[in-house]
Amino acid sequence: MTDLKLALQEQAEDVDKVLDDLLLEPEGPEAQVVKAMRYSALGGGKRVRPFLVMASSRLFGVSEASALRVAAALEMVHCYSLIHDDLPAMDDDDLRRGRPTCHIEYDEATAILAGDALLTLAFEVLADEETHPSPSVRCALVSELAKASGMNGMVGGQMIDLMAETRELGIPEITRLQRLKTGALIVFACKAGAILGKAKDIKMQALRNYGHDLGLAFQIADDLLDVEASEEETGKKVGKDAERGKATFVSLLGVERAREQAHMLSEQACRHLDVFDRDTELLRAMAQYVVNRRS
Amino acid sequence: MTDLKLALQEQAEDVDKVLDDLLLEPEGPEAQVVKAMRYSALGGGKRVRPFLVMASSRLFGVSEASALRVAAALEMVHCYSLIHDDLPAMDDDDLRRGRPTCHIEYDEATAILAGDALLTLAFEVLADEETHPSPSVRCALVSELAKASGMNGMVGGQMIDLMAETRELGIPEITRLQRLKTGALIVFACKAGAILGKAKDIKMQALRNYGHDLGLAFQIADDLLDVEASEEETGKKVGKDAERGKATFVSLLGVERAREQAHMLSEQACRHLDVFDRDTELLRAMAQYVVNRRS
Repeated sequence: MTDLKLALQEQAEDVDKVLDDLLLEPEGPEAQVVKAMRYSALGGGKRVRPFLVMASSRLFGVSEASALRVAAALEMVHCYSLIHDDLPAMDDDDLRRGRPTCHIEYDEATAILAGDALLTLAFEVLADEETHPSPSVRCALVSELAKASGMNGMVGGQMIDLMAETRELGIPEITRLQRLKTGALIVFACKAGAILGKAKDIKMQALRNYGHDLGLAFQIADDLLDVEASEEETGKKVGKDAERGKATFVSLLGVERAREQAHMLSEQACRHLDVFDRDTELLRAMAQYVVNRRS
Repeated sequence: MTDLKLALQEQAEDVDKVLDDLLLEPEGPEAQVVKAMRYSALGGGKRVRPFLVMASSRLFGVSEASALRVAAALEMVHCYSLIHDDLPAMDDDDLRRGRPTCHIEYDEATAILAGDALLTLAFEVLADEETHPSPSVRCALVSELAKASGMNGMVGGQMIDLMAETRELGIPEITRLQRLKTGALIVFACKAGAILGKAKDIKMQALRNYGHDLGLAFQIADDLLDVEASEEETGKKVGKDAERGKATFVSLLGVERAREQAHMLSEQACRHLDVFDRDTELLRAMAQYVVNRRS
């Protein structure tokens, strides 16, 4: 196992512990919604976003406890978006991370509420003083995560994606769609360490740019997997984009050029890290990983 | 028109202006989600919760600009909950505030996303320095609103409500359900002024208790309207509880005792306000209004 895979796995376990503590089942009949939240948030996944929070936090000597809480909050937002995106009215997916999606395992109402509650809890966790002693830092985290997730971020991207089923998109539109839909949250993950560590602008910018290029590389790799990988490898349905006639980087560029583009973006991401003297190995390895992964 | 009705109407207009500014339509195809947010958030309503934020803020000399932003954020959370609760998988309602519900006017996917984005924007607004100069106050607002809305608040209450369709609830269970589902947000509205004004514990508690009794009175009055009022008066479908065989305060206590209970709670709410020397007239008038309203 490579150093990166080991680090990914170890940190996934640490983040799971924090999520497990935060998602305490209450006594009453409302326990059902928390069960569904736990099902989706603790159900595996690569934990790329939490990993990026931890790796960027290490650059600034942020306490592990702070970084883990932000990582857990971000993973909750990511999982909420997956639950809602999988709903029948949205992408209508039955399989996620190799298991039935939340609305299949429970029901649609519970899935909607579980998503709502994960999003809400993420902000509660960020605003809590356990996350960071400085209220300014906590407000900055809430504000940045809200911007990355809302109508001008992830939700806006998902809206464009849904509208795209009836419109022809080109490379500029798809790039913008992905910057909003998946890029904004990845950029937040990369910036989180800089926010927690009250970093100077130049370092904040470097991480933002790294996250931007990494996010796009990640998405192109995802589009490639949808064409080339099996359901067993990815744990979700593949070939969906082609089936729905949706334009992707791969349908527009072809497999070869899309792969080149992903590698180019991965290298470009790493160059932004040159402003740091040290401790960038894991972030560089991650940029390699996202374009070479098979799941 | 009574002083209260005039005050309600004036403040609804002020809050609408703030919401209008916050819900700027973007240029791209994602504009659709913001249109749906505007449709639901600017579509009338009594604005009871924003009113309570404004009235409690006045007790502590909070700036009107701060109070209005918190009122707008809270109304966004209330509207998000209505959009999601109205979905086919939840309460399946077609009519709200005298107009088609969000998923009827748009579609289900857009309605889910519009709710998600309203919830997210509420936290963004609260965390922004325009809302209050003190980051500690902003964190407290985010934290309290998240607790009131999440799995141990409004979402938990809605989950119990959905589970209740297959279980028999008694008065204690229904009281708890309503404390979570509608009470928590009303209590937040009443406490918001105290948080913004950094009030002492005794005044915070008084407003919490006022909000608690007011919220329950409000809900019993709602149950009575569902039995006694017309669709024209309420702007939503009536007789739903009986049709679904759901236990309510009215089905368990009968109309007369339920009405007595609502009035008793309304008077009890007012007594909590005795710790304040002045400026409680509107809050007292509101306690009367919620039990006497016809919509």
